[in-house]
Amino acid sequence: MQKLVRNLIQTNSTKIVLVVLDGLGGLPVNGKTELETAKTPYMDSVAQSSACGLHLPVAYGITPGSGPGHLSLFGYNPLEYQIGRGVLEALGLGMDVRRTDIALRCNYATIDKGIVQDRRAGRIPTEQSRKITEKLQSAITKINDAEILFAPGMEHRFAVLMRFPEPLPPGADSINDTDPQKEGKPPLQPVAASPAAERVARVAGKFIAEVSEVLKGEEKANYALLRGFSVMPHLTTFKEAYGLTAVAIATYPMYGGLAKLVGMATPVVSGGVQEEIDYLKANYDKYDFFFLHVKKVDSYGEDGDFAGKCRRIEEFDALFPQILSLNPDVLIITGDHSTPAIMKGHSWHPVPTLLKSPYVLGGLCKGFSERECTKGELGIFPTVNLMPLALANAGRLKKFGA
Amino acid sequence: MQKLVRNLIQTNSTKIVLVVLDGLGGLPVNGKTELETAKTPYMDSVAQSSACGLHLPVAYGITPGSGPGHLSLFGYNPLEYQIGRGVLEALGLGMDVRRTDIALRCNYATIDKGIVQDRRAGRIPTEQSRKITEKLQSAITKINDAEILFAPGMEHRFAVLMRFPEPLPPGADSINDTDPQKEGKPPLQPVAASPAAERVARVAGKFIAEVSEVLKGEEKANYALLRGFSVMPHLTTFKEAYGLTAVAIATYPMYGGLAKLVGMATPVVSGGVQEEIDYLKANYDKYDFFFLHVKKVDSYGEDGDFAGKCRRIEEFDALFPQILSLNPDVLIITGDHSTPAIMKGHSWHPVPTLLKSPYVLGGLCKGFSERECTKGELGIFPTVNLMPLALANAGRLKKFGA
Repeated sequence: MQKLVRNLIQTNSTKIVLVVLDGLGGLPVNGKTELETAKTPYMDSVAQSSACGLHLPVAYGITPGSGPGHLSLFGYNPLEYQIGRGVLEALGLGMDVRRTDIALRCNYATIDKGIVQDRRAGRIPTEQSRKITEKLQSAITKINDAEILFAPGMEHRFAVLMRFPEPLPPGADSINDTDPQKEGKPPLQPVAASPAAERVARVAGKFIAEVSEVLKGEEKANYALLRGFSVMPHLTTFKEAYGLTAVAIATYPMYGGLAKLVGMATPVVSGGVQEEIDYLKANYDKYDFFFLHVKKVDSYGEDGDFAGKCRRIEEFDALFPQILSLNPDVLIITGDHSTPAIMKGHSWHPVPTLLKSPYVLGGLCKGFSERECTKGELGIFPTVNLMPLALANAGRLKKFGA
Repeated sequence: MQKLVRNLIQTNSTKIVLVVLDGLGGLPVNGKTELETAKTPYMDSVAQSSACGLHLPVAYGITPGSGPGHLSLFGYNPLEYQIGRGVLEALGLGMDVRRTDIALRCNYATIDKGIVQDRRAGRIPTEQSRKITEKLQSAITKINDAEILFAPGMEHRFAVLMRFPEPLPPGADSINDTDPQKEGKPPLQPVAASPAAERVARVAGKFIAEVSEVLKGEEKANYALLRGFSVMPHLTTFKEAYGLTAVAIATYPMYGGLAKLVGMATPVVSGGVQEEIDYLKANYDKYDFFFLHVKKVDSYGEDGDFAGKCRRIEEFDALFPQILSLNPDVLIITGDHSTPAIMKGHSWHPVPTLLKSPYVLGGLCKGFSERECTKGELGIFPTVNLMPLALANAGRLKKFGA
C-alpha cells in the first residue's frame, strides 16, 4: 500500500490534523460506552457532516500495543515493522534512540550467591532507583566500542542504550532475555542467537559484570536483569513516503519517540491538551501534517475509571473548537486502539474515527461514538488505510492508472 | 481470488447483466449527491429488494483511472495488471491492439533548430491533425520488421502501434517518453532501459526521423513527441477464467477495448443508451454475460455539471425497465469509479452497487444512492469481489472444500 501511495504523491499547501485520543474506543456500562456517556457536543456536531467509520489497527481480535497502534495510524504495516520492547521502553523514557543503538529494558534485581532472590529488587522506590541509575551512569560510560546510556524509569525499571559507532547488521539484537522468570534460579547469560549478535552479546556480558561490581554494596538493587534487546526499525519518513513535513505534538515521550521513527519533528511540549493546542496554533504555518496526541483518555481507561475517561473526553471536546477554528483541510479524530474501562487495558475493538473534509458524504451518523461510527461511510477498515484517505482528501494523491 | 474462482466454475444457462454507469458515485451539493438528487424510481425500487453496497476499485484513498476501474469490475486485480498509457490511448481511438504491438500516444509538436517551440503544435484543429495523420500513414507503413499503424485523435494527439511479427519479451516497452515537458528544450531520444527494449528503441528512433522528414513542410505540426510506450497486459479471458461468453455493449471505443483485453466480443454499437439496450435485447440469446457501458454520466461529472450528470442518470433510469423486462438471473448496476461533479474528475470514493438476484436479503436500502448503499448487505468491498458474487448468484460457482 505504502509503495503504491508513494508513487502517486503530489504536494500542495493543504494541512492535515490527526488528533489521537489515546485508547479512545470503549465498551458500555449501563448501556453506554465512555464516548456515548461523555457530553461531546462539538465532536457530535462535526461527526454528523464527516466521513465516519471504525479502524482496525492489526486484525480482528488482535489487541495492539502502542507501537503497532501508532505505526498503523501513520500508514505503516504493523506486522512488517515491529518495534522491540527495549526500543519502546527507551522511547517512553525520552531517550534519543538512534539507528546505531541496541536498546534494552532492565530491572534492578536482588541476587545472592548467584541465585535471583527478587526479580524486582523489592520494587524499590522510583526516587531510589533514579539515584542508583545515576551512579551507574557515572561509573559506566563505555564498554568495548559501545557508549552506554542509562535512563531511570518507574520503581525497579530502567532502560539502556548501547550506542555503537555504526549501524549493526540485521540480527544483531538476537539475544535472549537474562531474566530467569522465577525467583530461586540463577540469571541467564546473554547469548547471541546468531553470529551477527556476538558483538552485542559480548558488551552485554561485560555490562552485567560491571553493573554488579558498581551495585555490590546495595541491599536490594544489586543486580540487573536485561530484556527486550532491540534495534530501531528502519522506516521511510513521512517526507519520503508522503511528501509531508510533519510534527508530533505530544507530552508523553513515547509518542514523540514513535513519531520520530517516521521522521516527524518532536518538539518538547509540556502541560496538557490546552498547551498542545497552543503549540498547534503557534506552529500551524510551519508544517503540513500535525499529529496531536492526547494521553489521559487511555490512562483513565487503563485504571478502569469509566467516569474519569468520560471526563477526559469531555475536556478534549470543550477545547476542540480551537482546532476547528484553524479550519484544516483534513481533520481526523480517532484513537490508536480501544481501552474500555471495564477491561482496564488495551483491547482489540475497532476504533471510532471521524474524518472532516469537503469531499465526504456525511449525514450518516448522529454523533461521534462507536455505534454511530458503524453507520458511517468509511465502514470498518484497516488502520493503514487512514493515511491514504487523509492524503486523498487533502488533494495530495494523483490518479492511479490511465 | 481469480484462481480460486476458476477452480470452482460450473456452467449453466444463466444470464448476467452488468450495467456500468461510468463515474456513477458522487458527492453532495445542497446536501444531496447526484444519485440522490436524480429522480430514479426504477433503480430505487429495485435497490429495495437487492443486495446493495459500495465497491472499492483499488484501495481506500486511491483514485482509479478507467483501466483499473474496469479491470477490477471484471475481476482482475488492477495492481497486478496495469494498462499502459499508450495502450489505453490506442484502445480509446478504436485501434485493434494486439499482443505483438507496442502502443504509444503521440503529440504533434513544433520544432525549430532542434528545439521544441510548442509541445502541442498550437493545438492544431482535429480536422487538420486527421489529414496530417493520414499523410503519415501513407508514407510510413513499415520500419525494420514492425508494421506502423496510425490513428488520429483530438487536436494535436494521435496514437501509433508498432506491430512486430511476434510477441516481444517482458521489458520491451521500457522506453522513456521523448517529450522534454518544457518548451525551449530539445526533445529526448527514445532510449532502451533494458536490452529487451533495444529492438523497439531502434524502431522508435527511425520513426521520429521518418515522421520529421514527412512533416518538414508543415508550419506547426513538424515533429512528433512520443509517450507511454506500452504493451497489452496478458489477461486470461472471461471464457477461460469464468466459463462465460461475454459481450461488451459500449459506444465509446476505449471501453470496448478494455473488454477486448479479457476476451469479450466487441461489436460496433452506435448511438446512445437506447441503442445499447436495443443491442442487448437483440443479442440476448447469444451470450452469457453482458457488459453495458453508459459513458455520459461520467462526462458530465468531469465537466463539473451536477445537473447534467443528474439528467443522464435519470435518462438511464427511464430506460432501465427495458433491461428489467429481460429478467436476467443476475443484474448489477454500478460504476467503474466515482466522478463527483464538485471534483470535476475521478475520485477515490467507493461506488454504489446494486445486485439483483433471487438469492439476496434485500430490504435494507430505501433507494439507490451512495448513502443508502452504506446500509446494504454487501458493505464496502474490494471491486474484484463483484464477479465472484455475480457468478455465485448465477449458480455458476461450486462449493469450496469438502
